[in-house]
Amino acid sequence: MIRGPGDDAAVIRARPLAIVSTDTVTEGTHFRLDPPWASTAEVGHRALASALSDLAAMGAQAGEAYLALGLPQRISEHDALELVRGAVAVAHETGTTIAGGDIVAAAALTVSVTVVGWAEREQDLVGRDGAGEGDIVGVTGSLGAAGAALALLRAPASVRAAATEEASAPVLARARAPRPRLREGRALAAAGASAMIDLSDGLATDAGHLGRASGVRLRLELTRLPLADGVAEICALPGIDLDARELAATGGEDYELCFCAPPERRASIESALAQAGGAGVTWIGEALAGSPGVSLVARDGRERRLHGFEHSWK
Amino acid sequence: MIRGPGDDAAVIRARPLAIVSTDTVTEGTHFRLDPPWASTAEVGHRALASALSDLAAMGAQAGEAYLALGLPQRISEHDALELVRGAVAVAHETGTTIAGGDIVAAAALTVSVTVVGWAEREQDLVGRDGAGEGDIVGVTGSLGAAGAALALLRAPASVRAAATEEASAPVLARARAPRPRLREGRALAAAGASAMIDLSDGLATDAGHLGRASGVRLRLELTRLPLADGVAEICALPGIDLDARELAATGGEDYELCFCAPPERRASIESALAQAGGAGVTWIGEALAGSPGVSLVARDGRERRLHGFEHSWK
Repeated sequence: MIRGPGDDAAVIRARPLAIVSTDTVTEGTHFRLDPPWASTAEVGHRALASALSDLAAMGAQAGEAYLALGLPQRISEHDALELVRGAVAVAHETGTTIAGGDIVAAAALTVSVTVVGWAEREQDLVGRDGAGEGDIVGVTGSLGAAGAALALLRAPASVRAAATEEASAPVLARARAPRPRLREGRALAAAGASAMIDLSDGLATDAGHLGRASGVRLRLELTRLPLADGVAEICALPGIDLDARELAATGGEDYELCFCAPPERRASIESALAQAGGAGVTWIGEALAGSPGVSLVARDGRERRLHGFEHSWK
Repeated sequence: MIRGPGDDAAVIRARPLAIVSTDTVTEGTHFRLDPPWASTAEVGHRALASALSDLAAMGAQAGEAYLALGLPQRISEHDALELVRGAVAVAHETGTTIAGGDIVAAAALTVSVTVVGWAEREQDLVGRDGAGEGDIVGVTGSLGAAGAALALLRAPASVRAAATEEASAPVLARARAPRPRLREGRALAAAGASAMIDLSDGLATDAGHLGRASGVRLRLELTRLPLADGVAEICALPGIDLDARELAATGGEDYELCFCAPPERRASIESALAQAGGAGVTWIGEALAGSPGVSLVARDGRERRLHGFEHSWK
């Protein structure tokens, strides 16, 4: 950064390709601030993590972030600073520079984050549109934590009280402080992933985007989906009663990466992800010819239509 | 643009320096939508123009814009499209590419714009901090139109009715569709401006930022301020009763450029601005030693403390 906050604009020494994404979250739609819901620190953390996850899905290296905050009067200065601290923590973890921003008065707490990432060459990046028939489909890490946390927070206090700390703690921690898979994204791009997307709206939705952009049908097996710690127990709680794999397929905000690769890349991808950190990979299906999109198949081989879990913070 | 909207992020072929600024406007604070106030098309226009004005103030070339819209339910699809069209018109005029964005539900209409500009070398850019003692201070174009429009719109209908079309039309047109001085900014940077800022909060405020960043006192003469067409008449209307030069010094959102330059650059700056378009330059003061900031002096040579005009859309 050559010039930072304090001038009319930030000045950044560029690399050959800029990768840019904008993400906005707003109270009532993307988060709630009343107990037991989010703190402002979590809001700041999740807003930046979500934007960086888009850079991860391209295989880009994180560069700078610009935060535009809309603050209602009822948010105290302390809570506003906590929000910024939440974002700064993610920036620090991911090597991102918060290079600018803007604060305005607003009716509802709103956080718009624009992130800029960098790459040397086009072939270092991966879009949504490169998957081919016969590719295998993988997912990093584990799924369902954010959805299970939402189900838990939405449940009556008596239901929440029935959850063990062992189940609720990891689920809530993942939901409150998601980690964008930036290193994994770069490793996957370098190891030959053909298409990639981050899971912000849920696997069923996001894999559909990838399938349609690539013109292939992703056939994914529900039984193969990797469940995050605590998800199975939370889903089984009386009063919650969700199918854990269906939740893993439809819950949003897990911020894992879903990607395709030619089958001969399997070993190099597994080894690249092992070197990139602890997230690992699970192979969950394959790319086929046919009507572009996604099919989720159950143990009996039949396609399941999934609904029933609405990922909404309202 | 290598990849545009539709993937996880936009991919842009970069030049050596990226110049980035973020600007947010929100209903009730920065604009009103009830008659006779702004249309959504004007909101879109002004939001992008305001962000691009920050790039102009650095001497950068406009590149891409990213729009994050927070839309309340009561905004119709037609009005939302008009907002985007207002931004597209500015993008078209200025050679800016709208390369991405995000739309979320929100309690109040909010537009966050992040703009990215480009430059080849650090010395092609101008910050706020380069003015030296003895520099002369100039301003592009003319001042007071946005402030006069605001005064007019705030006045009772009976007062508005007393304004001639000849006075109100240019003032309202300037306020509703400001033009960022991008060509002028690049011309000023190339011709040797030592420091520059755009006038978004008003000359008295913004020249103070420049003075403090540069460690000089800008002594500006109120009588020299160039008034925009119609401002004098609107200010003189019974029921408005404002001092036109004070309004020109304190009204915001004119988006002209205020800059400093060594006196020997005067001729080359005048000729560069003449080539850049019709805005022209007015020399309004000089940079002196002393307590950093700004002094506004009246005809009698005394410093005036200015207050009384609050640039607010509430």
